[in-house]
Amino acid sequence: IDYNPKQMAIREKVFNTIIGCFKRHGAETIDTPVFELKETLTGKYGEDSKLIYDLKDQGGELLSLRYDLTVPFARYLAMNKITNIKRYHIAKVYRRDNPAMTRGRYREFYQCDFDIAGQYDPMIPDAECLKIVYEILSELDLGDFRIKVNDRRILDGMFAMCGVPDEKFRTICSTVDKLDKASWEDVKNEMVKEKGLSEGVADQIGEYVSMQGGMDLAERLLQDPKLSQSKQACAGLADMKQLFSYLQLFQVTDKVSVLFDLSLARGLDYYTGVIYEAVLSQMIQAPVVAEQNGALPGDEASVSVGSVAGGGRYDGLVGMFDPKGKKVPCVGVSIGIERIFSIMEQKAELLAEKVRTTETQVLVASAQKNLLEERLKLTTELWNAGIKAEVLYKKNPKLLTQLQHCEETGIPLVAILGEQELKDGVVKLRKVASREEVDVPREELVEELKRRTSKLP
Amino acid sequence: IDYNPKQMAIREKVFNTIIGCFKRHGAETIDTPVFELKETLTGKYGEDSKLIYDLKDQGGELLSLRYDLTVPFARYLAMNKITNIKRYHIAKVYRRDNPAMTRGRYREFYQCDFDIAGQYDPMIPDAECLKIVYEILSELDLGDFRIKVNDRRILDGMFAMCGVPDEKFRTICSTVDKLDKASWEDVKNEMVKEKGLSEGVADQIGEYVSMQGGMDLAERLLQDPKLSQSKQACAGLADMKQLFSYLQLFQVTDKVSVLFDLSLARGLDYYTGVIYEAVLSQMIQAPVVAEQNGALPGDEASVSVGSVAGGGRYDGLVGMFDPKGKKVPCVGVSIGIERIFSIMEQKAELLAEKVRTTETQVLVASAQKNLLEERLKLTTELWNAGIKAEVLYKKNPKLLTQLQHCEETGIPLVAILGEQELKDGVVKLRKVASREEVDVPREELVEELKRRTSKLP
Repeated sequence: IDYNPKQMAIREKVFNTIIGCFKRHGAETIDTPVFELKETLTGKYGEDSKLIYDLKDQGGELLSLRYDLTVPFARYLAMNKITNIKRYHIAKVYRRDNPAMTRGRYREFYQCDFDIAGQYDPMIPDAECLKIVYEILSELDLGDFRIKVNDRRILDGMFAMCGVPDEKFRTICSTVDKLDKASWEDVKNEMVKEKGLSEGVADQIGEYVSMQGGMDLAERLLQDPKLSQSKQACAGLADMKQLFSYLQLFQVTDKVSVLFDLSLARGLDYYTGVIYEAVLSQMIQAPVVAEQNGALPGDEASVSVGSVAGGGRYDGLVGMFDPKGKKVPCVGVSIGIERIFSIMEQKAELLAEKVRTTETQVLVASAQKNLLEERLKLTTELWNAGIKAEVLYKKNPKLLTQLQHCEETGIPLVAILGEQELKDGVVKLRKVASREEVDVPREELVEELKRRTSKLP
Repeated sequence: IDYNPKQMAIREKVFNTIIGCFKRHGAETIDTPVFELKETLTGKYGEDSKLIYDLKDQGGELLSLRYDLTVPFARYLAMNKITNIKRYHIAKVYRRDNPAMTRGRYREFYQCDFDIAGQYDPMIPDAECLKIVYEILSELDLGDFRIKVNDRRILDGMFAMCGVPDEKFRTICSTVDKLDKASWEDVKNEMVKEKGLSEGVADQIGEYVSMQGGMDLAERLLQDPKLSQSKQACAGLADMKQLFSYLQLFQVTDKVSVLFDLSLARGLDYYTGVIYEAVLSQMIQAPVVAEQNGALPGDEASVSVGSVAGGGRYDGLVGMFDPKGKKVPCVGVSIGIERIFSIMEQKAELLAEKVRTTETQVLVASAQKNLLEERLKLTTELWNAGIKAEVLYKKNPKLLTQLQHCEETGIPLVAILGEQELKDGVVKLRKVASREEVDVPREELVEELKRRTSKLP
């Protein structure tokens, strides 16, 4: 799919907001190739692995298109023996279209990741990731949203205490993850019929995954007769309390409801601790548009309706790429930027906003013939002074044509040259919207334009 | 190849300069997918076509990785029936590694293109492309450079008048293109032995391609007994004169030598009019570094040593994608951005410049224990006020550790909290470089930081 200038202008605005936030938090950026060794991606994504786009064997190494930015990041850390970094990465990733239906088709979309690697005191970087989600979604003005949090250790402890065998933790986790789209009936059905749990075990899980709350729920569950038996669950619950207290300090809990939700599971295999997801409260119809474009929600294949950010802690992933298995704890978040693009596009359309695709401040124009050279000279003066200026590539364009170009592309000012102006050493400066005109001495034009355009958005 | 934060910081600076210039000239931007239909790329690149990276047939449509941004741009214009646009596009393209030596390996690198499509009065957009090259290379401070210009119509007219058969124009053009790296002896040899020209014809070509000059050369050649017989050559020469006059108005000729050089041929098939190339006068050793990285000079495979930008007019390309063959005249330039990256990296290394990879303005620190909460609160205040701030993720970091973090990453200021400061309602603001400290009232801190950091680069 191609993106036209209007879409790109909206994208640029979104990128600037997001990158601005990442930089405010002291992040640096890296880049990795679109191709990774096939083996790098193998065994990292659980049931989503079937969506990886492999390249055919051409005699060299087996390559796959990157499926996300997290695994390449972990590979990069291990390869370069980096134990400490706060980085963001905005780049395209590739996934197969529903592989059952089509062969060889792929989807290409942006991901937008922020991760903190390093051995630190618990939950501080984790809380910062959520602060970042909070800042970005607030700044982009996407309406109310909720943040759901959970912890893989709580889930695993709960599974263990409910009687799920160890080897089924990940696959049952995938099933729980479907609760945001499917009913408990369907999910239970899958647990029992497809994954072989007993009804009793499934029902016990059912009770837990219906629980939602705040720090109080974490406290209550620390007293839960079953969960409190699990060291893992207790560690997760203690960290959950800690997380909530940091979120308060970061003022994330002020206007947004942060929900400790035991049904949040996340699809991917590599999470080891806290997991989270941000969900818009009121969805515009954006997802439909997105799917028509073929640009499905960016972050993960299993993203829920309305979800615009997700992530968690993955302390084991870097170790999988280190020859000695040396671990680097990591926590990160992926902003569902393609979905955000769709929402912003939709919003611009609904509000009939005029999206400017250029930033031109002034058009250099003339009402008379044979002034091309003078127009080019003045345009050069403006460019050299750093003013964003355009001039029509015609020897003798009509003034109307020149003004229409301004109207169409949103250029706010016109600098008009004529024989008289040249003689007087002035330029007629016209405001396109109000048609006001004033003569400005040529040597003051740059200053005047800078003065006027500094007020523009 | 991965790019580390230092490389990315240099890249970002270069991108900002270039995009700033494109926007100053009123350009908008688009994006296209990395994959194009194989047939879209077929027959557009002449002898370089062997470097196109095809994907294996997986049952769907045959796909290739984009080889440059020009052909996708032309395809985009035809598909969307756009007849007028000034656009830039910065994205990665893919080429096979020397296909004789390795199988299945590829190079991935950025291209950075600016193009003007539309039916306009001759040579005005063409001159603007060169103005852009001039502005970008000047602003990036890459040292002296020259711009070489020629015109395919002059070359073709010259070939015709020298007796080259029509069907050999393009292949002889490719051979002439090698003159920037090979001697005339070798080039002549290829013309005669491989491409079957007679020695006499080759020698006539040899006389012309040794000519260099300015507008005067164009005037002289308009009187040349042989060239003046060719309508094509005369049209090219008249336009060349026009181009030089516009370049004067754009002040491109002020500090840079623009050279009408009959040996400039450019490798690609699709050019139909003016062609040009910018060459750095004094080369740092950058190309070597670039090749070690696997990131060969970005613009075209046949780029000459020291060449950092190239392009030309291609009036026929869009028509090749239109079902009715409707033509859209285009002219554009590709900035050799990978080479520029290498040069900038080399320069930073030579000057032992410290490249900052983050933009953090202040670290929130403490000399005492148990102040994590206070540090997080203050950091939150700063983030909320748009200040770029960091805080170490440790409950009780040593002050020295915190100051070292500033030294290492170039953070200029530290905001230090202690029991006394909290009691007094102040923050100790320390300049890292000079170790100066002042107490700033907490409610004035944001203003003070904004005041101090607005002076920073």
